[in-house]
Amino acid sequence: MDMLLETGTEDFVGGKWQNEINVRDFIQRNYTLYEGDSSFLAPPTEATKKLWKKCTDLFKKERENGGVVDMDTKIVSTITSHKAGYIDKSLEKIVGLQTDKPLKRSLQPFGGIRMAQTACQSYGYKVDDEITEIFTKYRKTHNQGVFDVYTPEMRKARHAAILTGLPDAYGRGRIIGDYRRIALYGIDKLIEDKIEQHASIEGEMTAEKIQLKEELAEQIKALNEMAELGEIYGFNIRKPARNAREAIQWLYFGYLSAVKEQNGAAMSIGRTSTFLDIYIERDLKKGLITESEAQELIDHFIMKLRLVKFARTPEYNSLFSGDPTWVTESIAGVGMDGRPLVTKNSFRYLHTLENLGTAPEPNLTVLWSTRLPKNFKQYAAHISIKTSSIQYENDDLMRVVHGDDYAIACCVSSMVIGKEMQFFGARANLAKCLLYAINGGVDERLKEQVGPKYRPITSEYLNYEEVIEKYEDMMEWLAGLYVNTLNCIHYMHDKYCYERSQMALHDRDVKRYFATGIAGLSVVADSLSAIKYAKVKTIRDENGLVIDYEVEGEYPKYGNNDDRADKIAVELVHKFMNMIRKHHTYRNSIPTMSILTITSNVVYGKKTGNTPDGRKAGVPLAPGANPMHGRDTKGAVASLASVAKLPFNDAQDGISNTFSIIPNALGKDEVFMGDIMVNFDCGCSEGNCQ
Amino acid sequence: MDMLLETGTEDFVGGKWQNEINVRDFIQRNYTLYEGDSSFLAPPTEATKKLWKKCTDLFKKERENGGVVDMDTKIVSTITSHKAGYIDKSLEKIVGLQTDKPLKRSLQPFGGIRMAQTACQSYGYKVDDEITEIFTKYRKTHNQGVFDVYTPEMRKARHAAILTGLPDAYGRGRIIGDYRRIALYGIDKLIEDKIEQHASIEGEMTAEKIQLKEELAEQIKALNEMAELGEIYGFNIRKPARNAREAIQWLYFGYLSAVKEQNGAAMSIGRTSTFLDIYIERDLKKGLITESEAQELIDHFIMKLRLVKFARTPEYNSLFSGDPTWVTESIAGVGMDGRPLVTKNSFRYLHTLENLGTAPEPNLTVLWSTRLPKNFKQYAAHISIKTSSIQYENDDLMRVVHGDDYAIACCVSSMVIGKEMQFFGARANLAKCLLYAINGGVDERLKEQVGPKYRPITSEYLNYEEVIEKYEDMMEWLAGLYVNTLNCIHYMHDKYCYERSQMALHDRDVKRYFATGIAGLSVVADSLSAIKYAKVKTIRDENGLVIDYEVEGEYPKYGNNDDRADKIAVELVHKFMNMIRKHHTYRNSIPTMSILTITSNVVYGKKTGNTPDGRKAGVPLAPGANPMHGRDTKGAVASLASVAKLPFNDAQDGISNTFSIIPNALGKDEVFMGDIMVNFDCGCSEGNCQ
Repeated sequence: MDMLLETGTEDFVGGKWQNEINVRDFIQRNYTLYEGDSSFLAPPTEATKKLWKKCTDLFKKERENGGVVDMDTKIVSTITSHKAGYIDKSLEKIVGLQTDKPLKRSLQPFGGIRMAQTACQSYGYKVDDEITEIFTKYRKTHNQGVFDVYTPEMRKARHAAILTGLPDAYGRGRIIGDYRRIALYGIDKLIEDKIEQHASIEGEMTAEKIQLKEELAEQIKALNEMAELGEIYGFNIRKPARNAREAIQWLYFGYLSAVKEQNGAAMSIGRTSTFLDIYIERDLKKGLITESEAQELIDHFIMKLRLVKFARTPEYNSLFSGDPTWVTESIAGVGMDGRPLVTKNSFRYLHTLENLGTAPEPNLTVLWSTRLPKNFKQYAAHISIKTSSIQYENDDLMRVVHGDDYAIACCVSSMVIGKEMQFFGARANLAKCLLYAINGGVDERLKEQVGPKYRPITSEYLNYEEVIEKYEDMMEWLAGLYVNTLNCIHYMHDKYCYERSQMALHDRDVKRYFATGIAGLSVVADSLSAIKYAKVKTIRDENGLVIDYEVEGEYPKYGNNDDRADKIAVELVHKFMNMIRKHHTYRNSIPTMSILTITSNVVYGKKTGNTPDGRKAGVPLAPGANPMHGRDTKGAVASLASVAKLPFNDAQDGISNTFSIIPNALGKDEVFMGDIMVNFDCGCSEGNCQ
Repeated sequence: MDMLLETGTEDFVGGKWQNEINVRDFIQRNYTLYEGDSSFLAPPTEATKKLWKKCTDLFKKERENGGVVDMDTKIVSTITSHKAGYIDKSLEKIVGLQTDKPLKRSLQPFGGIRMAQTACQSYGYKVDDEITEIFTKYRKTHNQGVFDVYTPEMRKARHAAILTGLPDAYGRGRIIGDYRRIALYGIDKLIEDKIEQHASIEGEMTAEKIQLKEELAEQIKALNEMAELGEIYGFNIRKPARNAREAIQWLYFGYLSAVKEQNGAAMSIGRTSTFLDIYIERDLKKGLITESEAQELIDHFIMKLRLVKFARTPEYNSLFSGDPTWVTESIAGVGMDGRPLVTKNSFRYLHTLENLGTAPEPNLTVLWSTRLPKNFKQYAAHISIKTSSIQYENDDLMRVVHGDDYAIACCVSSMVIGKEMQFFGARANLAKCLLYAINGGVDERLKEQVGPKYRPITSEYLNYEEVIEKYEDMMEWLAGLYVNTLNCIHYMHDKYCYERSQMALHDRDVKRYFATGIAGLSVVADSLSAIKYAKVKTIRDENGLVIDYEVEGEYPKYGNNDDRADKIAVELVHKFMNMIRKHHTYRNSIPTMSILTITSNVVYGKKTGNTPDGRKAGVPLAPGANPMHGRDTKGAVASLASVAKLPFNDAQDGISNTFSIIPNALGKDEVFMGDIMVNFDCGCSEGNCQ
């Protein structure tokens, strides 16, 4: 690539980024570390206040309307499908809406026409007949593709909810385009680069190579459409951004293209604050803008991200407790050279929670390190206490794996921006799997054979060795079924709902993670501990099916820093991950696992019968890797220590521990930041967590 | 599968066909060999005459209109897209049209919207804007997919016509559904079987397995739509056919579904006559129909096949000298047990050429064996002499490879019905390749670098060893490029234009042939012979490019049974086939080669410059494996002997020798049937051959 200095970048310190697409290099050479305090921050401008008032009025109207203010039923959402839309054109510094009006939900049928129809029907709208015909007769959808290849066993496992939340009726999300590239290079250079990549695929044309080459062709089309989107709003984003406002605007057009094309479960934005600070800093130095204007740009940008919405079905909303978009922005962290990646803009982003008020979106995530500047830590703590709207994740842990230009997709999935992506895989319910092991594959709720017809346990009292043996067999089955169900889903997603605009902002050869997840960890750990250390009596129905358990005596419980129970959890994670690893994964992606249900654990619990730990049917599973509520009786530190034992290598996609502590503990005692990722009351109450 | 005897099949001799889909077994157990003469045949009925008159009037009108009488521009052709259409409902014994009116061309945009538009525009029609939008914005086509992944080299080779006639802008065809299955089993049983096949794919879900499983799901949908098509015409084809009329009708609905969905270059019908004879024979024996009525059914069926048409572009028509559909029906042949597969119906099919008059379609192909009954041979000879409309192919040769239930797709491609299919691959121009070898990859017509920049020949006189070495290098390049271009085409055809209705009438695991083809064999053989045995002087343009040749002295020419020249041809075929075999072929298909250009050799010749054999630029290449016109001076037998030396193992997809002999030679002298497949003046004059 020939990266001659373009207008707009001539003041920057040059380097590798001029000869190749390399945003990280640009950041490292140009960002200005800020170690000062928050006193420089500016309050919202009048324009900001007026605009945000309009938005809050709309949000109110949305709630009053029962969920939406308006929906597209005829225009299929594409990058260029809509004319320009505004909240109030005269006041907006950063522009661009998903449709022609704020909060009007877009129509996205590529994932599934029935999903789109149901979403509309739920709010009293109806998808245009012609659109229905097109997406039934001529254009197959992701959802149709998946259901064409599901085996009866997959359907049953899905119905029984031993496999849950599978992205077969909604976009898989969890892909972060490197939207910064548009600001730094402009669309034309990105296209030039992609054309080179496209040309680089020749020789023996295997299906794999043809697939990638076609994807690159689609990416190039998407980039051209992004440029058109810019034109619709009166901007030429083919060239690099020349100032801070353009940089934010260019970057946002990239993100907007993504949410116009994709309604993924998590449409995260990446790690943009320190990158954008470079442009702001330059404009400030040149006297082109004031701090107030800088904050206004960020406030308006964040406002746009708060407006991002999708048309969802009630089932989706109930699973995720709301309709989260997971516009996760990763802030701060430390560079490979030891310099914190904190800039004034890291403050400005958090400051939006003051200027605009608290909100679950965008999901502002601080990449926490012990080495972050004290002033920033204090400000983050201050905002956390004030708004309960910041998520913290352990940069010291993730930096080792991903370096210093990764970001979080959704709540905990880390990936190097523009170089890694994830095939999202939702969850396998290990608690239910244990019940299947006991009942020989018969579902305890449906009373139907769902798992394989292995021999059930017939004794009155459960024997630990017997249960473990049967449980491992059942887990082997579940791991295989789970991976292969996901193989079907991701094959079809690529075929019918490929993320061309997001992947256009990635390198040619991305590292793909095949993300699996487990639910019910603490229930299983405690159940097995009860079977091992106490006595568990089975209670059977008239057909001999175990439907309840009586625990006789005491047993050590996970979450008390007691190795007897904690080790069971550790082994479980390790074993299941290795079972996952045995199987073929789509596109030779790298299998990972997460332990991170945060609200969906409630739904999963509803669908799981009585368990041998004494938990009753329907009671929520503990979220993520949390101990079961109330059982971690040895205090917070012991509870966290238990969670900290879980092997990150076997759960590289993230371990969550939803955790509330009294505000003044924060900032004084940093022990909880040691070894685990903590979702620090990240707005769950506002329905933002999965 | 549980194949209880169904109403309609209870009089038949039972066997394996009752427990599995096995039409061959049904035929073998139930057909009645006929060794008598043609005296039983009935003339056309009044209804037949009236109907055919209407058809010929329409054909006339079509010609007067410049090619078409009507075209669909708004209704996308699917199996169920049209209401019932008739020539004259009161007279038709076998019903069903591609659209709602005879000869109205259907709109098939799945292969390529631009092709569909061009076809319409050529005749003064315009594709509806909405359809254009759908197949541009929402539904990608085969053609778009292919061009998304072509490399610049592939585009250049295509433009320069060293690769020619690639099925990237039209359907690949060459797939024969076993349409007989519908008559014998009814749609419901076929669906039951396909559901079982679909269920049989589970376990590790690789991309290959997911692809097949999705295809099976699509096949099941197609079968259901076929049943709907039956209903549109008032028939319940879910159940087996109960008599001859139903058997023909059921079978035809299957074929009709195929041509409603696919506009492949060759939409052959298979080997239906002896199968259908079983039903006719039963009805005759029961006194349900007379011979006249039996012939009427066949006449009406054949009439329908004669009406099959597609919307083609002028380029297509010029390449194929008309708009052939290649509705090839394979007649006669001999069974593995030695009994000829000749029935009265074999006669009836040929007799349609008398009852309805001569016609290029359907392409009636006699599978010739020395062991065919004399009476049948005589009748076929009689019809050949009378109508010049029969094609002959060597059953004794093909039976060894394919058994006794294969059929010919297009003109020479043999495949076992319902068990084998072909990825059609058109041609590589070996004559042009020789010129590239001489000129270091520079195209002699375009004066552009198309092939690799190998060292050109710089001497004035061509040296045989040098030419051979350079030619082999260039052939290696061409073989690789050719196979990989086809890999792209077939990947995309499966992705965007899958033949679900035809494949629904195949077994689960089909054998796939990867058919390549060569053009210019005799030109190359003669050129190399001239270089070796005479002296060939190069004539160069101002840039040193060889643009012409002067042959000094005599040289042995291919087609005179002279091993010096013939061996060059044999080696060429063998070498190029082995070069093809070196490469990865899509879906691990089996590479084959054909030498069979029959009319397209004219177009290929136009695009090939002067050659070292003395042939002038633009002069047609010889068709197929034919010697160059006028050079086979040693007589017909010597000419045929040369062709017969070509190794069938290296050209298993067929070798054609277009050949005219005086009528009375036929039936007396059968030497020409020895070892080669002969296209015996098969209607080429009527624009039917490729």
